[in-house]
Amino acid sequence: MRTGIAVEEARRLVLDGIAPLPPETVTVPGALGRVLAVAVTAGRTLPPADCSAMDGYALRAADLAGATRAAARELALAFEVAAGASAPRALRPGEAARIFTGAPLPEGADSVVMQEDTEAAGARVRFFAAPGPGEHVRAAGEDVRAGETVLEPGTRLGPPHVGVLASLGRSFVRVHRRPRVAILSGGDELVEPDEDVAGGRIVASNAWSLAAACTEAGALATQLGIARDTPRDLERSLRAGLASDVLVSSAGVSVGDHDHVRPVLEKLGCRLVFWGVEMKPGYPVTFGRFEEGTGPLVFALPGNPVSALVTFEQFVRPALLRLAGRRTLARPVLRARLGETLRKKAGRCHFVRVTLARESEGFVARSTGNQSSGVLRSLALAHGLLVFPAEATELAAGSAADVQVLVADVLAGPEPV
Amino acid sequence: MRTGIAVEEARRLVLDGIAPLPPETVTVPGALGRVLAVAVTAGRTLPPADCSAMDGYALRAADLAGATRAAARELALAFEVAAGASAPRALRPGEAARIFTGAPLPEGADSVVMQEDTEAAGARVRFFAAPGPGEHVRAAGEDVRAGETVLEPGTRLGPPHVGVLASLGRSFVRVHRRPRVAILSGGDELVEPDEDVAGGRIVASNAWSLAAACTEAGALATQLGIARDTPRDLERSLRAGLASDVLVSSAGVSVGDHDHVRPVLEKLGCRLVFWGVEMKPGYPVTFGRFEEGTGPLVFALPGNPVSALVTFEQFVRPALLRLAGRRTLARPVLRARLGETLRKKAGRCHFVRVTLARESEGFVARSTGNQSSGVLRSLALAHGLLVFPAEATELAAGSAADVQVLVADVLAGPEPV
Repeated sequence: MRTGIAVEEARRLVLDGIAPLPPETVTVPGALGRVLAVAVTAGRTLPPADCSAMDGYALRAADLAGATRAAARELALAFEVAAGASAPRALRPGEAARIFTGAPLPEGADSVVMQEDTEAAGARVRFFAAPGPGEHVRAAGEDVRAGETVLEPGTRLGPPHVGVLASLGRSFVRVHRRPRVAILSGGDELVEPDEDVAGGRIVASNAWSLAAACTEAGALATQLGIARDTPRDLERSLRAGLASDVLVSSAGVSVGDHDHVRPVLEKLGCRLVFWGVEMKPGYPVTFGRFEEGTGPLVFALPGNPVSALVTFEQFVRPALLRLAGRRTLARPVLRARLGETLRKKAGRCHFVRVTLARESEGFVARSTGNQSSGVLRSLALAHGLLVFPAEATELAAGSAADVQVLVADVLAGPEPV
Repeated sequence: MRTGIAVEEARRLVLDGIAPLPPETVTVPGALGRVLAVAVTAGRTLPPADCSAMDGYALRAADLAGATRAAARELALAFEVAAGASAPRALRPGEAARIFTGAPLPEGADSVVMQEDTEAAGARVRFFAAPGPGEHVRAAGEDVRAGETVLEPGTRLGPPHVGVLASLGRSFVRVHRRPRVAILSGGDELVEPDEDVAGGRIVASNAWSLAAACTEAGALATQLGIARDTPRDLERSLRAGLASDVLVSSAGVSVGDHDHVRPVLEKLGCRLVFWGVEMKPGYPVTFGRFEEGTGPLVFALPGNPVSALVTFEQFVRPALLRLAGRRTLARPVLRARLGETLRKKAGRCHFVRVTLARESEGFVARSTGNQSSGVLRSLALAHGLLVFPAEATELAAGSAADVQVLVADVLAGPEPV
């Protein structure tokens, strides 16, 4: 087991060897946000035939050469083609067909004049513009050709992809399974949110903030509950999480006499990879794994509420995203100027809770106040985590630093009103 | 009804007069992403008493003045305080108490020395460091004081907020209701994804891409199905959506003979606010509203798949976010250099589907190819929509433009490995 390692090294140790979870079949409407496990090939050509991109008239462009508002031309109205219908016959020279958006072009027609450039005149139609050949026509296969690969494996499905899949007649799709995360709290002082806190008990709030963080990362969290701080109770609770993809515990990983988590994990067959990362908050974070296929990835996070979420952010979240097939594992990062001078000792990387404000020369980061790892409220107020590198001892007001953005709203453009 | 208006004016007409939906009570774990409708006041003080921030020893700082590794001091081990327990008696001068993270400080103690700076020696403990008064102690109320407002109305709940609420013993919370959106497709050529497309029929894919876009915006979408293009069928379908907060239809809003949507909406009592916005794609977008409290906001979107999603993005999404209580309504916007020259006629604002690549001097935006409003695939490939302003006719390669970011992953920092 490694100890006292750098954040980057710890992240590498976590992510090395994590592969996306195997695929499952889900409905297309339910696939939003999921990652394709296989290529999607088109089973049909779209549009299936040349069709109109407008409501207007289908005709031969040559019949209207030179038409303008001043020099209108007339053609005979032959028939009408609605969307979902087809033309009764080919269009002859000198004829136009009323046509609607999406309707197939009659044979003989090569372009469409939009309704706004025409005037109906009984059995004839007056045209005030000359189309180029192919104008307002969507060619067969313009969007997709049958047999073509339309979406590559690894594509994250957003609303347009859902539309593409639906348009190809797909109702189901193969995507990487979502990681199942089992969450455990450990500590004799812990109670559930609706239980009595008399006598120094405190709510096991980490279980709920970590579950929310899992949900936000697209994973499925289940609560193993609160284990008492005995090897026996911890073992029973940890065993219940061994069938999940990831096991996240909080508390019980410092160096105290009551730290039973690591020995129990080892007893269960977990190989501890590291304990102790040179970061603040979160130094005592522990990571282990079982032999491939025999158990979950295990993260034993510190019990302080801020430490738990900050270590989740740096290690658990990227792991969950990679398991889900995501290729981008980092948060948005922006370069911000410091609104105040920050100082620390060299040695540990600090993740400073900051607000971000868009000012004239770019974003300015300011501490949200008390940076104690117990003050969860200062994380609730934060827009991001400013990275104060391990070896740095001072970041002067006005200098620039990287900020991991937790609240994407701060990146929004000018408000739309 | 206004027509031919600018995008900004249309957005203002949509958003003016939209207020957040009334509150509902939801469980705290289920409140992730929702917006608080009321202030949250602390019902308890956290921590409830001065407590240890470390595993170590509680003592009087004065008893260890001057201790170093070279000049260790010893104190008598008096008793132990576990988290969730309390001290059996006050600590006397010259004594130390073994204490664990989160445990209450014994009366008489004023600081904690962490375990790493100590050595147990039978009934005594050797100390290698002198703490400052209050060191490694979390003062009572450091996080929250009972009666204090902890979270303001309008706060969007992320994982830390869920943790804060849980730690206060809250199981339920009042948040703004999520908007209910009814989605309707209109057109005789349309079928469901699993139906036969022989004879020029096409899948009503907009219904599914728009539902996904609603979900992504935190709204609840229901499918009204496909209405045939007759006033009677449209009226029946639209009536079914009148009890929702928002009604979104696609197709049937051009100027063709088959456009029955607007007259039917008016017949049902909807006041049409605008039809036709100077944008491409999406000119024929229509917006209407009912007298307050008598019916939904109504968006009749163009039928082309790209037009439907681009107009959703500009008008429906900000409306849904405001209904849900969100205060930031815009997507992240970044300034990108153009990788190629773009040209158009003056008059309409173009939303150009682009990829974004982080290059040495910042982001470069490049067209995803065919910008026909029928080619949904080019939206599926896009990272964002480049705003080509209405009056501009050329954006030269290398010049800068605003891009609405649809895929936040492109903003990610350097990968964590």
